[in-house]
Amino acid sequence: MEFNREKIIVIGGNDAGLSAAGRAKRLRPDLEIIVIEKTPFIGYASCGFPYFISGRVMRKSVSGPSIEEIENRRGFQVWTNHEAVQLDLLKRHVAIKSLLNGEEKRVRFSKLVLATGARPLIPQAAKINADNIFTLRNFADAERLVNYIKTNSPQKALVLGAGFLGLEMAEALRQRGLQIVIIDQAPKLFQNYADKIAAIIEESIQSSSVELILDEKVAQFDIENNRVQNAHLVKNGITETDIVLLATGIEPNVALAKNARIPLGKSGAILVNNRQETRRMDIYAVGDCAESQHLVTKKSAWLPFAGIASKQGRVAGTNIAGKRMLFPGALGTAMAKTFGLEYGHTGLSLSQAREAGFNAIETVITAYSKSEYMTDATEITVALVSDLTTKKLLGAQVVGKADAGQRLNILATAIAGHISLHELEYLDFGYTPMISNIWDPIAIAGNAAQKKTKEK
Amino acid sequence: MEFNREKIIVIGGNDAGLSAAGRAKRLRPDLEIIVIEKTPFIGYASCGFPYFISGRVMRKSVSGPSIEEIENRRGFQVWTNHEAVQLDLLKRHVAIKSLLNGEEKRVRFSKLVLATGARPLIPQAAKINADNIFTLRNFADAERLVNYIKTNSPQKALVLGAGFLGLEMAEALRQRGLQIVIIDQAPKLFQNYADKIAAIIEESIQSSSVELILDEKVAQFDIENNRVQNAHLVKNGITETDIVLLATGIEPNVALAKNARIPLGKSGAILVNNRQETRRMDIYAVGDCAESQHLVTKKSAWLPFAGIASKQGRVAGTNIAGKRMLFPGALGTAMAKTFGLEYGHTGLSLSQAREAGFNAIETVITAYSKSEYMTDATEITVALVSDLTTKKLLGAQVVGKADAGQRLNILATAIAGHISLHELEYLDFGYTPMISNIWDPIAIAGNAAQKKTKEK
Repeated sequence: MEFNREKIIVIGGNDAGLSAAGRAKRLRPDLEIIVIEKTPFIGYASCGFPYFISGRVMRKSVSGPSIEEIENRRGFQVWTNHEAVQLDLLKRHVAIKSLLNGEEKRVRFSKLVLATGARPLIPQAAKINADNIFTLRNFADAERLVNYIKTNSPQKALVLGAGFLGLEMAEALRQRGLQIVIIDQAPKLFQNYADKIAAIIEESIQSSSVELILDEKVAQFDIENNRVQNAHLVKNGITETDIVLLATGIEPNVALAKNARIPLGKSGAILVNNRQETRRMDIYAVGDCAESQHLVTKKSAWLPFAGIASKQGRVAGTNIAGKRMLFPGALGTAMAKTFGLEYGHTGLSLSQAREAGFNAIETVITAYSKSEYMTDATEITVALVSDLTTKKLLGAQVVGKADAGQRLNILATAIAGHISLHELEYLDFGYTPMISNIWDPIAIAGNAAQKKTKEK
Repeated sequence: MEFNREKIIVIGGNDAGLSAAGRAKRLRPDLEIIVIEKTPFIGYASCGFPYFISGRVMRKSVSGPSIEEIENRRGFQVWTNHEAVQLDLLKRHVAIKSLLNGEEKRVRFSKLVLATGARPLIPQAAKINADNIFTLRNFADAERLVNYIKTNSPQKALVLGAGFLGLEMAEALRQRGLQIVIIDQAPKLFQNYADKIAAIIEESIQSSSVELILDEKVAQFDIENNRVQNAHLVKNGITETDIVLLATGIEPNVALAKNARIPLGKSGAILVNNRQETRRMDIYAVGDCAESQHLVTKKSAWLPFAGIASKQGRVAGTNIAGKRMLFPGALGTAMAKTFGLEYGHTGLSLSQAREAGFNAIETVITAYSKSEYMTDATEITVALVSDLTTKKLLGAQVVGKADAGQRLNILATAIAGHISLHELEYLDFGYTPMISNIWDPIAIAGNAAQKKTKEK
């Protein structure tokens, strides 16, 4: 019996991998499942790291469960500190190396899930060794940063990259009392966003005590005692810093797949179908290392977000267990809350829509989130990207002091439901002054977009 | 020229009527439009009355604009304190009576909009004259109550009806320091809601300092000096009270339509098509006096909610102005916030769905609204009513301390978009720990509903 038992190897022990392993084991308790994880941690809450670093949440809230917890509760094995170094698709085994003692062994598999995630993109100038340069991808990274702050009490931080992570980390470090400079090489914050939305977010940073410098890069770091002391900026001279945080984007971690000649998509992430199967039999890919079907373009796209990772994991796990389950596609919806604002995007931006060949327009409106006579009413700004041809929604961005995030999810639902701009204006939302408004910002946005489609 | 000028009469000067008049005038400034309003007030914010009564918002926030404001800003005429008493469809005139001096005149019209709203249903025992019995339908009602409270400083209030208005008013009066008893004749709070949702709302009332008595009615009121002193309850003896608030439901105000033989729907409200036209040429009906196409049953239904009223008004105004505009249908989405909870419903309840002939099931889940490690994370309970045959959503109810209202609007959007339960589980929501969770309560609800459809 044991000899023929199906053996599932999952490479990567964060959201996507654990989701695949857990679902497969739940549906088929007879499966032998081993999750291989390079770091000492599994199932850590990456999106919560900024709140761990700011001190708002505790270590155990974001460090993930212990191996014992997983093994006892969910019934599959976990090998942390192990790296999958080579994949043999013909012989169906994977070479796994212990990062503790360097030993390598081959493990056979019936099915294999690639959940290798993504890794930080490091700007040229930062490809150096220094104790005070940090990335923030896994829990070991987060812990290293927290420990460094506790031990060295840095006063100044330089954050490279003004995306979601950069801004969240700028705020977290500010809350720990550090002076912050954020630089980004783009001339505009959130380049894909409507100008007004980006301007509102920029204003929230400028009006906090954080310095934001756009259209700027680090030319070189001065290092002393293995620590960065200064950053030479291309345009703005030299800035002193005690720590450097790199938040300059990520790339899919696909070396293992690539070496095994598993086809990648245009983005460089692994191509999968809607069962999360790669182009190679019995090899699945999920999460940040894989592409997804984009619900708007209907094309394969790289959408490395935690929600998608968990969902793809669930789909892969279900299919591995022999039940058919399809991933319905994704929009790349993402949101953040920094410096008093909630904001985010779903679907295509105006430029993405035009690149994808849509006859697209952008409309932007601002309206009260709830009855304006309520003292806590605040404004929400909604940008819609609409298709002039079909009069449907292609994408959206939203920003506001409150309730903007859930509005974004309403728009994601509207796109998934192929709702027309006319229907968007007339969606039957519940109204009560403490929560909403008679004409919701979304209805007003739908009205504005419709008007513009008629002008054209 | 003046002789042939088109003349639009709108009967009713609240949301629906003003929305129709405003839209028609904006599109066709040449139209002569007169809005007839029985009370001294127009465009008052009925849903905000509880907050005016509690003292949280000011009079001017809910009393509506002045006639001058409307006439100057929006360009149509308003006759307050005037009642339309008879409608002659053949001769195309309406008899209008001044409630100030009793004078009556006939006004001819080219098109007429019925926006006569709804009126409170008065329980038999309350069909009496007393200075301290209140309904709360128009601003005059609200002002009478506020003035009575200021002048007489009542200590005890009896609220009849534990629906949205009853609970909102119980809380408002409690905030003014009154002791509150709410009674409702139904044996269960929110009878149409899933048991767990209703129980959570009931618990919020019981744990506040408000007494809720279900399965109870007033048999008789004791009146002295034109004031109710006591209420004789059928089962619970005599209760003293200083004021009585009636919140026992509403009925459509259709006497004018009925006398003119304009066809009504099964609900007793006026039948309209999706251009808001009644079955009589050039006569429109909008708002609480009219029915709507229900998006789920595809049948005409009475859905007397403010959001729908404004939208129907806009549709009627657009069509009156000669541009085609269709009302896409409604779900009867409604929400409230009382005693620390947000809650509401959209679409059909389980019993409504079964009555309408659907093979319906109900599933209820509870999950965190945002990452549970955030200190302000609270639970949301979602009940879904799903169709076993199509595996789609028919309705939903939601309750939670925060963010439940917007979740309800997401579900309303999902129903409008005909999203399947499978898609609901996989909707691509944005995730960030401060706002949301990797598996949103809505995704978890979609998963639970799907599981149950598979068991059946």
